[in-house]
Amino acid sequence: MALKRVGKHTVKFENPPKIIGTASIVGPKEGKGPLKDYFDIILDDDTLGKDSYEKAECTMMYTVVNEVIKKSGLKSDDIDYFLAGDLLNQTISANYAARDLEIPFFGLYGACSTMTESLSLGAMLMDGGFADHVIASTSSHFSTAERQYRYPLEYGSQRAESAQWTVTGSGAMLLGNEGDYPEVTYVTTGVVKDYGILDSANMGAAMAPAAIDTLNTHFKDTGRTPDYYDIILTGDLGNVGRKLTINLLKEYNYDISKVYNDCGSLIFFDDEQNTQSGGSGCGCSAVVYCGYLYKKMMMKEIKRALIISTGALMSTTSSFQGESIPGIAHAVAIEFD
Amino acid sequence: MALKRVGKHTVKFENPPKIIGTASIVGPKEGKGPLKDYFDIILDDDTLGKDSYEKAECTMMYTVVNEVIKKSGLKSDDIDYFLAGDLLNQTISANYAARDLEIPFFGLYGACSTMTESLSLGAMLMDGGFADHVIASTSSHFSTAERQYRYPLEYGSQRAESAQWTVTGSGAMLLGNEGDYPEVTYVTTGVVKDYGILDSANMGAAMAPAAIDTLNTHFKDTGRTPDYYDIILTGDLGNVGRKLTINLLKEYNYDISKVYNDCGSLIFFDDEQNTQSGGSGCGCSAVVYCGYLYKKMMMKEIKRALIISTGALMSTTSSFQGESIPGIAHAVAIEFD
Repeated sequence: MALKRVGKHTVKFENPPKIIGTASIVGPKEGKGPLKDYFDIILDDDTLGKDSYEKAECTMMYTVVNEVIKKSGLKSDDIDYFLAGDLLNQTISANYAARDLEIPFFGLYGACSTMTESLSLGAMLMDGGFADHVIASTSSHFSTAERQYRYPLEYGSQRAESAQWTVTGSGAMLLGNEGDYPEVTYVTTGVVKDYGILDSANMGAAMAPAAIDTLNTHFKDTGRTPDYYDIILTGDLGNVGRKLTINLLKEYNYDISKVYNDCGSLIFFDDEQNTQSGGSGCGCSAVVYCGYLYKKMMMKEIKRALIISTGALMSTTSSFQGESIPGIAHAVAIEFD
Repeated sequence: MALKRVGKHTVKFENPPKIIGTASIVGPKEGKGPLKDYFDIILDDDTLGKDSYEKAECTMMYTVVNEVIKKSGLKSDDIDYFLAGDLLNQTISANYAARDLEIPFFGLYGACSTMTESLSLGAMLMDGGFADHVIASTSSHFSTAERQYRYPLEYGSQRAESAQWTVTGSGAMLLGNEGDYPEVTYVTTGVVKDYGILDSANMGAAMAPAAIDTLNTHFKDTGRTPDYYDIILTGDLGNVGRKLTINLLKEYNYDISKVYNDCGSLIFFDDEQNTQSGGSGCGCSAVVYCGYLYKKMMMKEIKRALIISTGALMSTTSSFQGESIPGIAHAVAIEFD
């Protein structure tokens, strides 16, 4: 077994890559939510002046990548790899952002797990000695996701109580080796879990088994217990999936309730913002990690975090064909003692 | 700059990972083409008995992954990562194959560049010390791609002379450190190139600039010239893109014509099989590398190969919105002296 592996599905970094910067952008609704003070850019206009929502989403990702490069004082040429994906068919937000960036690009598809998927792979490219700087990014947009996955926006359709609201937002993390910054210490990579959920308006329930499996594996592989962490933050199970995760992890003898939250539960005032079970979309965990969590860590209010983005891996085609919804979750430990 | 980097966008492996096995599966049409003797499994029925072409494509990928594991004498539990993607919306072929495999999974989207994208990342995870065995895989299916990207199959629409025929097939490569097998020595990662091509029936022209850029970068970064290689094999530019690549690389003072071919040009008898500019789809380069090339290398008929899968990163939505077609190409050097 390779030296950097710990347990079954976890790697431990020899030279933990540092998150030397983040950038986040959100739409107007997210900018009125409880985390508004943590985002770098809050849009007044979720079209960004573009003639389609898809082009707007792409521009959001391009903007955060440029923003995180600018903040760091580096140039685009200094970035060795750009790892990104999004929810749209053929991941066009990431592809067209990459077109304008001229950075070697690996496109990913992990649905809403993309933030920790890109961070996991990016951290391995860093610690493996293949890169000095990597950017990991993802995005989502309420209006692109809604019209691709669900209904035409003009319908104004009713929403189930278990439904989540796709976050309009994008986040980017810049990995490097220099300076005093939070470090990526462990990565636990998820396997696909499918407990037969067919209801695409209940993604929390579809993704919870994957989150539970990855958390259980992470604890077993590292020997850590939930209380090692100041915060365990899944994204985006929402309120329904969050409760399932707490309850079902108890069956594996792990009680995470004291330190646990979910990005989808944090980002909106669900009652007054009418967001049912909370936020979702790749951009949800991206902006909560890049905005809220990273800033809390830089202020040393949080020192040890375990983040787990969760993805639902179906398509409209697979749902039409009667397939259930497979989920995946990737965990990344970030520490700054 | 990290130690394993060479030049601008290339990495050189310290402990080159070995391709310890491959498996390939193709449809009936590919099984009547010029490379038929090199494929492991030729299907009589491109539905594989499933009730949709999408489920058939997923089953093809699942089959080659199991086949390559079986050939190696390993168990599914011995595989540390499964890296895969495909052309379908939300990469459902890879996702649902991963569901049944129980191997830690990173989903990718690189359109038809996915074979060398997955191989590039897989080789870095190996050499970085994060894995002992990795499987890289991709698939495509004529009937799923045609109905998702182009026209309902029932139309029987006419095809442009520059159009390519999506290959029904899937390939998987198994990376390991043991035994006497072809080694992955260099990886050159592509940047997205877009020269403004709008015609989605001329993908060869859309992707050729990316192939040319990555080849030029690879030669510059490594100091190698085209004659170092026994074969340089792009996939899948087809006949139109292949000629463009030869001609335009001459402007960079590299003449690849003596050692160069394209997977899309090799897989069909274009005249009698009515495949216009040749084959395409993620499965095209996957089965040509996993079938034809790997077997030629194992017989020592080819010792030094440079493979470059090329992807067109548009979607139907981006095309409807007037966007041009961005391309990407990732190069991997495989050597077995």
